[in-house]
Amino acid sequence: MAVYTHLGAEEMAELIGHFDVGTLVSAKGIAEGVSNSNWLIETTGSDGAGARFILTMYEFRIDTAELPYFLALLDHLAAKGCPVPRTIHDRQGQLYRTIGDKAVALIEYLPGVSVSQPTPDQARAVGEALARLHLAAADFPMTRANAMDLVESRRLLESCGEAPLAEIDPALPSLAFSQLDELERLWPQDLPQSVIHADLFPDNVLMLGNVVTGLIDFYFSCNGFCAYDVAVTHAAWCFSPDGQSFDARISMALLDGYETVRPLSSDELKALPILARAACLRFLASRAYDWINTPADALVAKKDPRAFGHRLERFYANAEWTPVLMLR
Amino acid sequence: MAVYTHLGAEEMAELIGHFDVGTLVSAKGIAEGVSNSNWLIETTGSDGAGARFILTMYEFRIDTAELPYFLALLDHLAAKGCPVPRTIHDRQGQLYRTIGDKAVALIEYLPGVSVSQPTPDQARAVGEALARLHLAAADFPMTRANAMDLVESRRLLESCGEAPLAEIDPALPSLAFSQLDELERLWPQDLPQSVIHADLFPDNVLMLGNVVTGLIDFYFSCNGFCAYDVAVTHAAWCFSPDGQSFDARISMALLDGYETVRPLSSDELKALPILARAACLRFLASRAYDWINTPADALVAKKDPRAFGHRLERFYANAEWTPVLMLR
Repeated sequence: MAVYTHLGAEEMAELIGHFDVGTLVSAKGIAEGVSNSNWLIETTGSDGAGARFILTMYEFRIDTAELPYFLALLDHLAAKGCPVPRTIHDRQGQLYRTIGDKAVALIEYLPGVSVSQPTPDQARAVGEALARLHLAAADFPMTRANAMDLVESRRLLESCGEAPLAEIDPALPSLAFSQLDELERLWPQDLPQSVIHADLFPDNVLMLGNVVTGLIDFYFSCNGFCAYDVAVTHAAWCFSPDGQSFDARISMALLDGYETVRPLSSDELKALPILARAACLRFLASRAYDWINTPADALVAKKDPRAFGHRLERFYANAEWTPVLMLR
Repeated sequence: MAVYTHLGAEEMAELIGHFDVGTLVSAKGIAEGVSNSNWLIETTGSDGAGARFILTMYEFRIDTAELPYFLALLDHLAAKGCPVPRTIHDRQGQLYRTIGDKAVALIEYLPGVSVSQPTPDQARAVGEALARLHLAAADFPMTRANAMDLVESRRLLESCGEAPLAEIDPALPSLAFSQLDELERLWPQDLPQSVIHADLFPDNVLMLGNVVTGLIDFYFSCNGFCAYDVAVTHAAWCFSPDGQSFDARISMALLDGYETVRPLSSDELKALPILARAACLRFLASRAYDWINTPADALVAKKDPRAFGHRLERFYANAEWTPVLMLR
């Protein structure tokens, strides 16, 4: 939640000059993004009528070799009518430029706000938008593996170590590692795949009322099971942020919305309880790793890993009886 | 440089409903302001044509009893054609509202960017804008004392203590306290007064090319000597940020621009070298205090107090011969 790099007005104006968007009128650093810096940019527009953009500078974690996947995906989805921001290409047609040793991309600005307390109608709209994304992305020609899969969850949790995990919560090591063992064993095969967003938290959805106006922040997107993306989105939307309370109305509306556009197969429905636990474990692992390894003076607000431990326990407690009913 | 308070979209929409500005379309936390949180807000506008605003939440340092001074001043100056953002009054005509125990104000959004490397033409425009501000504010009916005067500089420096100051720079305690003694003795009387901005750094000026489109962040504004405001602006604009190099062309252009609109009297010119040193000491004192007292994990980037020690030394070294010539 910070702007890591100072970009002077003169540098910014020079950069904007490489795009056919008119001249720079305003630039405000915005408090979004954990691993990149973002500015809300206003220009005179290519037609003089004014235009707005998000300028993103990639600071950490992102390998620029992966940028074409993320940025071309936006163009692919936007061309198919999905509410995602287009990448603005520079005058040479490039998807991104560099300033010093950092890549920067100019992205379409979309209206909408991120809801904090979603209503069922809003959850339904998000489910529909996610299903449309999966359908629209099915013929996207590039591929990227999920960097946050179970292998990575194990690597993160093992590098945390049991003692530091137990300091967060005494029950955390046994929960995490027993679930990890079981999920590795139960991981489904051959479910329908597409490009998945893999991080569709409310923060990454812009809405106006009940309408989804923007799906943003595709920097975890990858090829994967559509149903896993449903599980991630479900874990992100249907609980209070601390993971303590589950809202069944949100859960039902989200899944109904998704199935209105893309019905889940019986194999997918059967796999959902496993995928739901894997989704929780993925965020548990990355949050625990960040919790233990983020210096106290970092600009980033640390997120409590226990919020996903609670979700995981809840899904696991329901594993024996009617897991899918919890979801729908 | 942070957003200290999370405001959910629902709270934000409720707040915006109290103003005649249409409905909320977008809200981005912006990385500006040290003692308040700011959002760039887009609404449908009272006429449906769209409108933008800055929403400011006052977090620290500001006594809400002082808000009417700052906010009514914006209206006063805007009505006289100064490029300052108007305060948007709510439907009851109030200048600010409260959320929980914090005051929030909706402020006009102005185009423009803050320059990092001003040109003489830009400095001239800033000088002109400052002089117009002093003329326009002369009949502003409210008053506020300068909270950052020499008395406050002494209080801050004494509360720092000599040893912590010497840790910043061994020469700092003797420089600061000897200057303080001398400036208290030499402080001028009876110079022309108005409302002064008192913090007109490049960050607080929005420009498009050579045109000043916005003077912002009036939260240090107060009644005081116009020439002191010239001295503050001069110290802020005519040196490299680290205070090591002085740009005589910027200095001359800034003062020429000011005098095009409001010529300085001979008493003011005579006082300028003293006021210039007092301006440096004011920022030296507050930066040293923040340097020593800001926790390492604060979200605020600490500013090096030595940058104003260097400016102060430079002004003092020139005190014996042609001090005003250094300025013009």
